[in-house]
Amino acid sequence: MEGTSEILEQAIEQLAKLPGTGRKSARRIALFLLKQNDESVINLAEALINLKKSITRCSTCGVISDGDPCSICQNAKRQTGQICVVEESQDVFLIEKTNEFRGRYHVLGGVISPLDNIGPDDVRIKQLMQRINEDDEQIDEVILALNPDSEGEATSYYINKLLKPFDDVKVTRIAYGIPMGTELEFIDEATLGRAFASRNTF
Amino acid sequence: MEGTSEILEQAIEQLAKLPGTGRKSARRIALFLLKQNDESVINLAEALINLKKSITRCSTCGVISDGDPCSICQNAKRQTGQICVVEESQDVFLIEKTNEFRGRYHVLGGVISPLDNIGPDDVRIKQLMQRINEDDEQIDEVILALNPDSEGEATSYYINKLLKPFDDVKVTRIAYGIPMGTELEFIDEATLGRAFASRNTF
Repeated sequence: MEGTSEILEQAIEQLAKLPGTGRKSARRIALFLLKQNDESVINLAEALINLKKSITRCSTCGVISDGDPCSICQNAKRQTGQICVVEESQDVFLIEKTNEFRGRYHVLGGVISPLDNIGPDDVRIKQLMQRINEDDEQIDEVILALNPDSEGEATSYYINKLLKPFDDVKVTRIAYGIPMGTELEFIDEATLGRAFASRNTF
Repeated sequence: MEGTSEILEQAIEQLAKLPGTGRKSARRIALFLLKQNDESVINLAEALINLKKSITRCSTCGVISDGDPCSICQNAKRQTGQICVVEESQDVFLIEKTNEFRGRYHVLGGVISPLDNIGPDDVRIKQLMQRINEDDEQIDEVILALNPDSEGEATSYYINKLLKPFDDVKVTRIAYGIPMGTELEFIDEATLGRAFASRNTF
């Protein structure tokens, strides 16, 4: 098309590949960047390359991290007896924000999903079992904190089954129920049902 | 915060500066990029730097372009007698897509907006007058295609006033009215009123 800039179109094409960004938003972002000073665009580009080049994964827990082991695994003050099992690294960051958990993590990097051809060997379940088998870690609680969807549930059940033979390892899961600050009126039936089934003594 | 990656946070911070991208979407984009191969992230970063470094503006019409003059201004087949005045470069790309206009453009780079301290000298109105004053271009029609908001309207009136002394230059504006493919029921009163005031013989 006459009058368009090939360079602009290339930038739009690249930006449109990002999640949540269609061609219209990509165009808006590209035109926005054109108005910025050189430095801020270079900062952005460098941060993206740096993200890909310098970031690593903790070989113990699997979280994305600036170093290996990650700051959590190498922190002697964290309780080594507790492992919280999550699906992705971002779940670790979310849980850390709550300040409720002082143990360590295990990132599966996915959940079992037969429909997507993801079996138990495609996620880091073996590595979890290895950590539990290693005597020096002395795990006494595995907290399952997977998403409450069918894949997350199936993965939780699978891990629970694997851990059955370990008499000294307690398997728990985070509570699923009514979120804080909402009204019952706005809660779906599945959540409300779960909240009843999981009720605690007051 | 323990457990977060400084490199990841830097990327999120940079991405969150983009329009339409909050910290949550920035985080989603960063984690998405981490899953991509090195090449695609480098392609994106290079496209952004290239966008900023290599793109230029046409010194005649002001459109963002890979070269100066732009492909439209240097195309001998375009009618040199018609100039379409638009606010931003993206308007040029939109109008080009319609294939309705074969003249040339003039990008103001903004509109007059006293509330934002943008006066006539802050947009490329002087350059437009220069183009019209230069004899070799022989402009016979200036088509105003600014947005139908108060700033666009004010700028249109201002340019029309400046062009009044030029008897051989016809000033027109694109039609504002009911968009194609909609029903009157869904049209706001201002648009419907404008459509009546601007009615044509059938």
